[in-house]
Amino acid sequence: MIKIQKYSKKEGLKELDLNELKQWNSKSEDNLWIDLWNADEETSNIVLKDIFNFHPLAIEDCLKYVKDDVVHYPKIENYGDYIFIVFNGMTANIPDYKIFSLSCFIGNNYIITVHNEKEKNSILGNFVTINKEVLMKKGPDYALHIILDELVDRYYPIIDHLEDKIENLEEDIFEKDTSNKLLHSILNFKKSILNVRKITSYQKEILFRLSRGDYEIIDSEESIYYRNVYDHLVRISDTTETLRELLTGILDSYLSIVNNKLNGVMKILTIFASILLPLNFITGIYGMNFDFIPLLHNEIGFLVILIMMILLVVIMLLWFRRKKWI
Amino acid sequence: MIKIQKYSKKEGLKELDLNELKQWNSKSEDNLWIDLWNADEETSNIVLKDIFNFHPLAIEDCLKYVKDDVVHYPKIENYGDYIFIVFNGMTANIPDYKIFSLSCFIGNNYIITVHNEKEKNSILGNFVTINKEVLMKKGPDYALHIILDELVDRYYPIIDHLEDKIENLEEDIFEKDTSNKLLHSILNFKKSILNVRKITSYQKEILFRLSRGDYEIIDSEESIYYRNVYDHLVRISDTTETLRELLTGILDSYLSIVNNKLNGVMKILTIFASILLPLNFITGIYGMNFDFIPLLHNEIGFLVILIMMILLVVIMLLWFRRKKWI
Amino acid sequence: MIKIQKYSKKEGLKELDLNELKQWNSKSEDNLWIDLWNADEETSNIVLKDIFNFHPLAIEDCLKYVKDDVVHYPKIENYGDYIFIVFNGMTANIPDYKIFSLSCFIGNNYIITVHNEKEKNSILGNFVTINKEVLMKKGPDYALHIILDELVDRYYPIIDHLEDKIENLEEDIFEKDTSNKLLHSILNFKKSILNVRKITSYQKEILFRLSRGDYEIIDSEESIYYRNVYDHLVRISDTTETLRELLTGILDSYLSIVNNKLNGVMKILTIFASILLPLNFITGIYGMNFDFIPLLHNEIGFLVILIMMILLVVIMLLWFRRKKWI
Amino acid sequence: MIKIQKYSKKEGLKELDLNELKQWNSKSEDNLWIDLWNADEETSNIVLKDIFNFHPLAIEDCLKYVKDDVVHYPKIENYGDYIFIVFNGMTANIPDYKIFSLSCFIGNNYIITVHNEKEKNSILGNFVTINKEVLMKKGPDYALHIILDELVDRYYPIIDHLEDKIENLEEDIFEKDTSNKLLHSILNFKKSILNVRKITSYQKEILFRLSRGDYEIIDSEESIYYRNVYDHLVRISDTTETLRELLTGILDSYLSIVNNKLNGVMKILTIFASILLPLNFITGIYGMNFDFIPLLHNEIGFLVILIMMILLVVIMLLWFRRKKWI
Amino acid sequence: MIKIQKYSKKEGLKELDLNELKQWNSKSEDNLWIDLWNADEETSNIVLKDIFNFHPLAIEDCLKYVKDDVVHYPKIENYGDYIFIVFNGMTANIPDYKIFSLSCFIGNNYIITVHNEKEKNSILGNFVTINKEVLMKKGPDYALHIILDELVDRYYPIIDHLEDKIENLEEDIFEKDTSNKLLHSILNFKKSILNVRKITSYQKEILFRLSRGDYEIIDSEESIYYRNVYDHLVRISDTTETLRELLTGILDSYLSIVNNKLNGVMKILTIFASILLPLNFITGIYGMNFDFIPLLHNEIGFLVILIMMILLVVIMLLWFRRKKWI
Repeated sequence: MIKIQKYSKKEGLKELDLNELKQWNSKSEDNLWIDLWNADEETSNIVLKDIFNFHPLAIEDCLKYVKDDVVHYPKIENYGDYIFIVFNGMTANIPDYKIFSLSCFIGNNYIITVHNEKEKNSILGNFVTINKEVLMKKGPDYALHIILDELVDRYYPIIDHLEDKIENLEEDIFEKDTSNKLLHSILNFKKSILNVRKITSYQKEILFRLSRGDYEIIDSEESIYYRNVYDHLVRISDTTETLRELLTGILDSYLSIVNNKLNGVMKILTIFASILLPLNFITGIYGMNFDFIPLLHNEIGFLVILIMMILLVVIMLLWFRRKKWI
Repeated sequence: MIKIQKYSKKEGLKELDLNELKQWNSKSEDNLWIDLWNADEETSNIVLKDIFNFHPLAIEDCLKYVKDDVVHYPKIENYGDYIFIVFNGMTANIPDYKIFSLSCFIGNNYIITVHNEKEKNSILGNFVTINKEVLMKKGPDYALHIILDELVDRYYPIIDHLEDKIENLEEDIFEKDTSNKLLHSILNFKKSILNVRKITSYQKEILFRLSRGDYEIIDSEESIYYRNVYDHLVRISDTTETLRELLTGILDSYLSIVNNKLNGVMKILTIFASILLPLNFITGIYGMNFDFIPLLHNEIGFLVILIMMILLVVIMLLWFRRKKWI
Repeated sequence: MIKIQKYSKKEGLKELDLNELKQWNSKSEDNLWIDLWNADEETSNIVLKDIFNFHPLAIEDCLKYVKDDVVHYPKIENYGDYIFIVFNGMTANIPDYKIFSLSCFIGNNYIITVHNEKEKNSILGNFVTINKEVLMKKGPDYALHIILDELVDRYYPIIDHLEDKIENLEEDIFEKDTSNKLLHSILNFKKSILNVRKITSYQKEILFRLSRGDYEIIDSEESIYYRNVYDHLVRISDTTETLRELLTGILDSYLSIVNNKLNGVMKILTIFASILLPLNFITGIYGMNFDFIPLLHNEIGFLVILIMMILLVVIMLLWFRRKKWI
Repeated sequence: MIKIQKYSKKEGLKELDLNELKQWNSKSEDNLWIDLWNADEETSNIVLKDIFNFHPLAIEDCLKYVKDDVVHYPKIENYGDYIFIVFNGMTANIPDYKIFSLSCFIGNNYIITVHNEKEKNSILGNFVTINKEVLMKKGPDYALHIILDELVDRYYPIIDHLEDKIENLEEDIFEKDTSNKLLHSILNFKKSILNVRKITSYQKEILFRLSRGDYEIIDSEESIYYRNVYDHLVRISDTTETLRELLTGILDSYLSIVNNKLNGVMKILTIFASILLPLNFITGIYGMNFDFIPLLHNEIGFLVILIMMILLVVIMLLWFRRKKWI
Repeated sequence: MIKIQKYSKKEGLKELDLNELKQWNSKSEDNLWIDLWNADEETSNIVLKDIFNFHPLAIEDCLKYVKDDVVHYPKIENYGDYIFIVFNGMTANIPDYKIFSLSCFIGNNYIITVHNEKEKNSILGNFVTINKEVLMKKGPDYALHIILDELVDRYYPIIDHLEDKIENLEEDIFEKDTSNKLLHSILNFKKSILNVRKITSYQKEILFRLSRGDYEIIDSEESIYYRNVYDHLVRISDTTETLRELLTGILDSYLSIVNNKLNGVMKILTIFASILLPLNFITGIYGMNFDFIPLLHNEIGFLVILIMMILLVVIMLLWFRRKKWI
């Protein structure tokens, strides 16, 4: 689908159709925003190739990934008259968040967004409804930063979720059973963190370049806004790094806890064996068929031996207590 | 609350109210210091927006975090006429230290500090009482370094506390019981260190930029002072790194100690089993109901077997001693 | 073998033989592509030494490795009039992929490729058939990027294979038996990853330099294409890094799982020993040959003891259940 | 205490007292060296503040640490007319080496050293006695490098000691008992290494700057000497890094050795249990009170069973030998 | 010993003695190569100090280490008219390779090599015999690269040896017994790798500077040759890094294998105990001296119990098989 909006100082905000777009003049002072989502290939080609004549590599990049519904890694390319940006967003549906790609072409007076979000009320849909007039007035470079900021803001619930989850993992390894299932979820957690890190590290670099003023199309006055988005990404990225280090600590602790448990099991075994093997030995002695064994035919023999056994048990238990085993 | 102080060469230090502030002239040679803490939104907006007309992003950053009473990550932004800095301090209440944020706007002849410390005798309160005249005379860039130095100095007790605690951890794993509780406190300690590291790493960068003379508002003569604060932060940051490495060593040692204990438990079990199983076997032999077993009906048979058993025990004990188990 | 193709604006694409090549003029506007694969030394020397007079180091590099059929590490050398590049490709025969080297000399109007692929339908063979006219028209710098892109694209199946394999490894350590065989394949996997990483890291640097415009022979307009190939390599390299980190997690988990299993084994042993040692003790008591043991001559004595034993077993089982061992 | 030495071309080396120093002219061509050690505050202030008028931050830095007898982290500050350096030395009393700080002010024609070494024959004392005339003639920048070189040279015995100690640790874990005490000394060793690393890393940076010619006071011809000292520090720092990596390997090995020992213990237990439990079972069978058990009343019954038992033991031992347990 | 060779365009290669050398003119167009090996101090001083008047630091560096027969760490110093280089070589006697140092002074028309190799047919000896005329003709900067290349080429057998050894280690931990001896050789291997890494990392930097054209004495046309040697060193260094990472994996695997073996031992113990403890219990029951125990006086009693026992064993074995223990 395609939605074209033009903002001119005289007429304000106005929606165009594809034919009106064809008469658009790139040197006009009007601002243009074209939103392409789930667009058919024909429309996309008309806009990107015929009207704007973008570089084939950029068109291929943005269309191929929309078509295949896969994620493109973030990138930024400066083509002189326009910048091409691919940025990754996250749908904040916890815990099953999904990563999607959003491509933007930003020129002096236009911004074109290409994405494959299926929902009608997409990120850009909402955003248009709320801010459209202000945005369009301030030009495409301002609009771009709002879009990127919106995408980055959506990472926070995911990060919060990961932070909560690591707290849970920590509690689990100390309180619950240390089954392999828990280990499995630690490993999955690691995968999540590595994924988030990969995405943020690319995008951090992109925003760093945008905020540094590498691109003429971005007005130098806007760079403070990009710096702001960059700071958010840095914060997310650092939190990810901290999570990763904590997870390493948790994995190490897990092993120690497993061995602590083994220790506990072995102590029980040792206590049982050390108490009962000597007792069995005593019963064994008096079970021998020798003709002459002291006490055997004594009336209180059994009682004496029983008391000896109880004494032995008490001594062993005291010894284990001193060793802090029980 | 708000406290406004003006220093003019003629009149010296003088306190202003909000109305007098409104007539303040930004090109005046007087120095101004406005301290806003727990201020209501209206007053804050009058000062930051109406009188000084700061950038909306900066105002949002500093007010939102004061209002929500959360911690803002450290940042520095150069807006040309003024710098906006967010710095994190620690309340030195050990072991339950709290991190708080302090925002500063520094212009040519004014410094505005915004924070949400609840205590009446806050860091800036004390600091004003003691140094105010000197500070104000030397201008806002000098005042800023004193504030940052004060904030950084407060890290030392925390760092000292962490250093003490790691000594304790080390002693504990070697002397006390290696319970999971100890492991838990190692993990918590790691979290503390990662937190301190995160804060210091940001602030190190900020102070590096201040000391390098990136900002015109900071007089180049003052940069030596910022370099000094930077050096303190570097020292804290390096100590943190050393603590982190030591902790890794402690965690690794913990695992070895647990396994050493397991070793000890297993040795006891093995000693008991290796001594008593053969003894039980001997009693078993003479407990069999065969008609013809040597010694069985001999008068000294029992004594002979008893001596054999004692010999066996002695041999086993000697063997274990040679293996250094006992 | 050798295949020489000339493209002139007038005549289009034309195949030359070695003698025609000798009359070739280096200042001509025609584009030349010479493909040497498994060429005999004489032909190679005629082309590289006599006709083009390349630097002896470069000739040695490219011929020695073709001859010995080993892999040369990637490199790039700028000799002023021409660039010499060695790049490594992978034959996408999974899982037994092989690494081979491809050397290129790129001048203003020629590209010479030297490789030792044995297959008739080699990478360059196919590529010629499909794209030859377009390629030759656009010049050697364009042709080079297509070749490199083709080589890099062949990495993807390998990377995908590694990603699949790590998923399998993960499943295996949780589901199948944790034999040493599995450990062996983890170690082999690590070796694969380190190999891919080594190759990509070199080639990343080469493509970074090509895309940055360090070389005059590469037209600045082409640098966007090299940047594209570079991005692909960065992506592969990052995936490799992520795989490496995941593998570390898997290796750590493996150890924990082994110890978990040990725990399970020990629990069974402890359960058996803790239940049966007391039972044996009871039978031992009533197996002693004392004259007076209570219940021994009672008619329901055996029954009473049997019930006591069953009670003991039940109590132990309940205790183990409370400890969540069974 | 204070010792002041002046070198003039005419008069050669001459010792001054504090009053003569007061008449010293900073533009004189004479070279001056003032050594302050354990000096009272008054004298220090006269020299540093009144006569040379150094920056208050530098004076505070150098006096505070001398007074408190603690270690100041290394630093270098360029104050234009003079450089202020804090460097850390080690007293080469192995194994209880101590770290001390030495502060230097270096101007065009003077060098002032401040330290708190208690020994009469201190580093600088010896150094003066031996080299004084040559040193003073060549000026303060030459003298500084000699002092730094002397301090760095004192690290070598410490480093050698650490290298010896790591050899011992290695031998110990393989030969001696793997007690927790050994683990404790590994951890202490790690602490030593981290300490040395922290000091050298700071000082490396300082010497790098000195050797690069960042400071006008250091003659460019002298930079080769500073480069030399820098190389020594780099070597020490690299050795430290190598030691750290080796230690990690030792810690990992320790865990494996502990587990290997556990393995050994368990093998003994298993051998005893696997041989004696079946034997006990056989004795148990013939200890049962059934009326009809084969062999029981046979004359050679006991012998047959005894031979069976011996056979069983032999089989088990052979089996364990095949498993390489014994 | 000393060997002096002069190459002049007219006369070609000619050997000089020490007296002829004294009349040598540093502005001559002839090329000079002086090889000093195991030279007595007097000769060395005449050449290095009196004739060439090198910097005392350089002379000290090169003579002290030759004299003490120890290894000097690699370094490069630019003294304007000449460069002083220390480079480390390896004698390729596997596995007991030895590291030796070679110092070079390179000026516009001379190269002086100082080393302490005892062998008559030393590296430089051979090299002279084979290449001398070509080398001398091309000047000292060309000769230097040949020497460095020769030294670096000698690393390859060592690296190959290390690669073979790591393959063996890997096989050993999976096939042979995991004794502490194996662990010991892993640790020694780590030491070897760290040593090679330390040497290559220094020399990499030296060759990088040589290839970058930092030194006027090295003709810019020669830099391609130095780049070539640099590439070889990079390759060696990367291989070392890969070996180090593999070794880490092997060390981790070793621990897992030890624990796997422990697991195996424990399984055997558990199988024996779980089968025999119940059997012993049954024999214990029928060994009790109660007057009335069912089956005891029955003729087939013993048979019934025997069959029950066999059934129990079969059930246990089936259970262990289902658990995949046997």
